[in-house]
Amino acid sequence: MSNDENDERSERDSYYAKRRRAYRDAKAAKAPSHQGKGGSGARPVPDSVLLYGLHTVRAAIDNPERTIKRMVATRNALARLGIDDPRSLPFPIEQTTPQAIDRMLSGDAIHQGAVIEAKPLAARPISDLGNCPLLLVLDQVTDPHNVGAIMRSAVALGAGAIITTMRHSPQESGVLAKSASGALELITHIQVVNLAEAIEELNRLGFTTIGLDSEGSDKLEHTFSGDRLALVLGAEGKGLRQKTRATVKILARLDMPGAIKSLNVSNAAAISLYAARTFLDARLS
Amino acid sequence: MSNDENDERSERDSYYAKRRRAYRDAKAAKAPSHQGKGGSGARPVPDSVLLYGLHTVRAAIDNPERTIKRMVATRNALARLGIDDPRSLPFPIEQTTPQAIDRMLSGDAIHQGAVIEAKPLAARPISDLGNCPLLLVLDQVTDPHNVGAIMRSAVALGAGAIITTMRHSPQESGVLAKSASGALELITHIQVVNLAEAIEELNRLGFTTIGLDSEGSDKLEHTFSGDRLALVLGAEGKGLRQKTRATVKILARLDMPGAIKSLNVSNAAAISLYAARTFLDARLS
Repeated sequence: MSNDENDERSERDSYYAKRRRAYRDAKAAKAPSHQGKGGSGARPVPDSVLLYGLHTVRAAIDNPERTIKRMVATRNALARLGIDDPRSLPFPIEQTTPQAIDRMLSGDAIHQGAVIEAKPLAARPISDLGNCPLLLVLDQVTDPHNVGAIMRSAVALGAGAIITTMRHSPQESGVLAKSASGALELITHIQVVNLAEAIEELNRLGFTTIGLDSEGSDKLEHTFSGDRLALVLGAEGKGLRQKTRATVKILARLDMPGAIKSLNVSNAAAISLYAARTFLDARLS
Repeated sequence: MSNDENDERSERDSYYAKRRRAYRDAKAAKAPSHQGKGGSGARPVPDSVLLYGLHTVRAAIDNPERTIKRMVATRNALARLGIDDPRSLPFPIEQTTPQAIDRMLSGDAIHQGAVIEAKPLAARPISDLGNCPLLLVLDQVTDPHNVGAIMRSAVALGAGAIITTMRHSPQESGVLAKSASGALELITHIQVVNLAEAIEELNRLGFTTIGLDSEGSDKLEHTFSGDRLALVLGAEGKGLRQKTRATVKILARLDMPGAIKSLNVSNAAAISLYAARTFLDARLS
């Protein structure tokens, strides 16, 4: 919680609490169905998510790890996806109108005529990391647009995985998948209960774990070393939690000479990934 | 227009055309009022915009160029903005409830209890550039979230100005201002009728004008030279227009080793600005 949220709050809080509850209820009513509580620290994982948009749907169909229950699409969208014979696919496809898809989704979803109902991807453990040299760790970044955009940059810039906490991170959703523009199907998404333990594990695995922090004593580019880098970013406003700050090997900053001293978190992630990729490429060449 | 939009489209087009019209109509109904058409190539500029959110409202109050007509805020928001005596400000302030502000704005606006009705800032001509060493040019980037986030990165990373076209760019709006997180009030926003002419003018002024293009023959970092840089970015999917590509001095690419070959435009802008800033700082030191 940012400092400027600590002032008098009774009346405002009850209002915003009500609004958050209404939002959650509306969301729950949209979701097809829910399972019970998952393992320790996990929130309930929905049985199904609705993924939409041509890039997103194409990437999901191409992902062997993805279980698709059904697809609803317009004739045009099927043509644009190159699906000539719907019966060739291992799930039912219903042809419909754009208006019918509008009614399945929230008002402003850019679905481009294609939506699938799919099982969420399974959460992956840290042992699935393999030997990737670059990854991102998100400390309670909650906005699904930002997390989706970060996944897209991570895949484009060759990060092998993204690690998030099970709580206080967005669940897989249509909004997240659309922002990720296909990257949701391509990135190894590791979800952990305890982020500090995960960072300690990364330290043991030989990663230089670098926390991005406006108070960091070194410029990011000066903190790169070794051949495995893990970049740790916190939510806007909140930043990294104290335990996270204490666990990373180094705290680094992005220099901002201007009158605004913070970047959107997906922009900070993109810059950091690009700088790390440049360092690793130079080492290899 | 991207290639995958060139297939059969009759039925879809009429549907989406209808949807766009409905969206425009709804937006026009929200806007307080409109003037007539502006100068050549300009769209009608609204008389007023509603700007909301604490950072955005604070920055607008602090901007001597900004004419504020009135403010509507909750008691808490006034306290958080440090406004003890509403009569000390040169515009009327109405104290109200969060719910009343909800009704002034669209459903999902995060207003934090503060909204102002203000005149849009005047469009600035290219002669207002001054001697800034770094600027951004946007070739028909239309999404207000992206343009706002780009303004924020531009201010944070010390770009002196942003140049957009008068048409096919988002007008000043609450959404753009909120994404800009105060940067709308801090950046010199130059709007031009003809982007190619503006780029030619930048070439004459000694800028190395660099168009970001996935087909660019050089890596961005290898194209920097001189002490004035102008980075030119196009919309996602569309990219730079042919005339823009022909007018910039250099076409450069950001290397993406991964399976996804494009970044969100605000992320591409952030990376490019950071790289350009690093180059200029090294030159000066």
